[in-house]
Amino acid sequence: MRAAVMRAKQIVADTLPDPVPGPGQVLVRTLACGICGSDLHFLEHGDEMSELAKESGAGLVMDAQRDLVMGHEFCAEIVDFGPGTQRTLKVGQRVCSVPLLFHSRGISAVGYSNEFPGGYAELMLLSEPFLQPVPDGLPTELAALTEPMAVGVHAVAKGQPTKVDAALVVGCGPVGLAVIAALRLQGIGPIVASDFSPKRRALAEHLGADIVVDPAKEKPVDVWQKAAGGRLPLFFECVGVPGMIGELLRTAPRGARIVVAGVCMQTDQIRPMYAINKELSLQFVLGYTPEEFAGTLRALADGKIPAEPLITGRVDIPEVAEAFRTLRDPEAHAKILVEPGKA
Amino acid sequence: MRAAVMRAKQIVADTLPDPVPGPGQVLVRTLACGICGSDLHFLEHGDEMSELAKESGAGLVMDAQRDLVMGHEFCAEIVDFGPGTQRTLKVGQRVCSVPLLFHSRGISAVGYSNEFPGGYAELMLLSEPFLQPVPDGLPTELAALTEPMAVGVHAVAKGQPTKVDAALVVGCGPVGLAVIAALRLQGIGPIVASDFSPKRRALAEHLGADIVVDPAKEKPVDVWQKAAGGRLPLFFECVGVPGMIGELLRTAPRGARIVVAGVCMQTDQIRPMYAINKELSLQFVLGYTPEEFAGTLRALADGKIPAEPLITGRVDIPEVAEAFRTLRDPEAHAKILVEPGKA
Repeated sequence: MRAAVMRAKQIVADTLPDPVPGPGQVLVRTLACGICGSDLHFLEHGDEMSELAKESGAGLVMDAQRDLVMGHEFCAEIVDFGPGTQRTLKVGQRVCSVPLLFHSRGISAVGYSNEFPGGYAELMLLSEPFLQPVPDGLPTELAALTEPMAVGVHAVAKGQPTKVDAALVVGCGPVGLAVIAALRLQGIGPIVASDFSPKRRALAEHLGADIVVDPAKEKPVDVWQKAAGGRLPLFFECVGVPGMIGELLRTAPRGARIVVAGVCMQTDQIRPMYAINKELSLQFVLGYTPEEFAGTLRALADGKIPAEPLITGRVDIPEVAEAFRTLRDPEAHAKILVEPGKA
Repeated sequence: MRAAVMRAKQIVADTLPDPVPGPGQVLVRTLACGICGSDLHFLEHGDEMSELAKESGAGLVMDAQRDLVMGHEFCAEIVDFGPGTQRTLKVGQRVCSVPLLFHSRGISAVGYSNEFPGGYAELMLLSEPFLQPVPDGLPTELAALTEPMAVGVHAVAKGQPTKVDAALVVGCGPVGLAVIAALRLQGIGPIVASDFSPKRRALAEHLGADIVVDPAKEKPVDVWQKAAGGRLPLFFECVGVPGMIGELLRTAPRGARIVVAGVCMQTDQIRPMYAINKELSLQFVLGYTPEEFAGTLRALADGKIPAEPLITGRVDIPEVAEAFRTLRDPEAHAKILVEPGKA
């Protein structure tokens, strides 16, 4: 099969052996797979990310020095079943899945494994119990957004929002946009969203932000303060670069709950006194539960997440390397989908 | 009146005019006032603390360059009433109070105000609505521990403890000891507590820790893990020096809720990825509510907080400067009370 392989800090198109489904596994053909910001990080800082995952007690950890096929935001169709499968779904059925695979030695992350290729390849293995059938009316491309949108659903759930909260979403990349969509799903508002990019601010409005802010012109917390009308501060850090957490601690109002959904890979500095004096809280989040994933797919199918405009590009396997480069410019793209062999 | 005045980064004994109670205010005689770790910090880093308080939106902020009488952990007796007071309590009644004073220009912190002296003076002004009468059976010295013990009660409440939590208290200075006492009051356990000092570990056991750890010999989180028996991680950072938050993020188990009760004045470094990978939360806390303060006084009066051994020294006003120096050694002392004119 063809695959875009991460090899020596580059993405290269290559041919790999077709995977063979083991017990409980299902062979699927990738229909569409979004390129995630974490993949861009991993290409540059793979060793460090692997090291941190190990230190945080993760079990089977990928080795960024060895070949690896990324891609964990996918919609696929069933091709074949391994031994011991229930086969409730049929060959040809479109499915989504949390990107986790059970195998004989444990569980691996699909898209961050040296043994099991992710969605930047034509074929993948998935675990049958994780398969979620894609409802017939839902376009494949939107189904592929289930995973990144579930990240927002989870971040909002961890923030334990109430009807007396008003939200500030700092950063309107895919994570921030998913948070905005999830806040809207929960009926939390007003939602104030900030990003330097006009394109991303427009997407934020489309996804459900009530007010958008250009932080080069106005202070996001000031705009939030005016919009909140006395509601409680529920903030989301969705940028993930050093300094963002510290800046929110400095500027957030008293009692703010800050959900950290941005993935800052580097060492960062904070002034604890800001947080102490104002009794702030920080909730760091990652991923989602299988239930949140399934609920997100349902919400997309029910038309409750207007996510179509997030998809700003489509590429085949040979163009994945170029797509990674293009994605560094926030004005150029939001989400690029890899669609193997579609063109 | 005699007072231990903070002047040019020194504590000096001096004579000040007796304060005169304004509307709603009560003149009290200090019976006992504990020396707080924050006062030690303030003596060294007063300018920085004032600056941070200002930036965090505090109203009337003290000026560390001008004379100031610290002391906010007090038990006092009523001497006289200002105009417009209810006078429900009588002259001679022992009282405690949250260290806040209403006056014509707003509200000031008793013990961190250039105008209103704190408990390291013979006389103070308090606001009548904040006065809590000390029950007759409760010794004055224990009543003076209401304030520091309320800090623990508040920190534990902000941690939203449940019966399925097991606690780790890192640092057994007065803040950590108050947290241990409050956890015990709430019936949360087991309580694992760590401190390098054998004296403080002994106090931790007296206050209610089930297991104490010398971090020079064992890793506190490992000991907690063994003791927890599957209960959920509720951790308390009670040291307040740079590196402590980062170390807890690195070593805490998945899903840990970390209450930051230690007061770290400096800029600090963290690795957000540790917190992200394990979905940790940090709740920063400060102070207590008037209700928590009153509840703590009641718990002390009911004999539910075995706090007596915390009091390791008693000094009069001329010895306050020396007491500040002595308190830097954790083996020498836990809490020193200033008892003006008692000797």
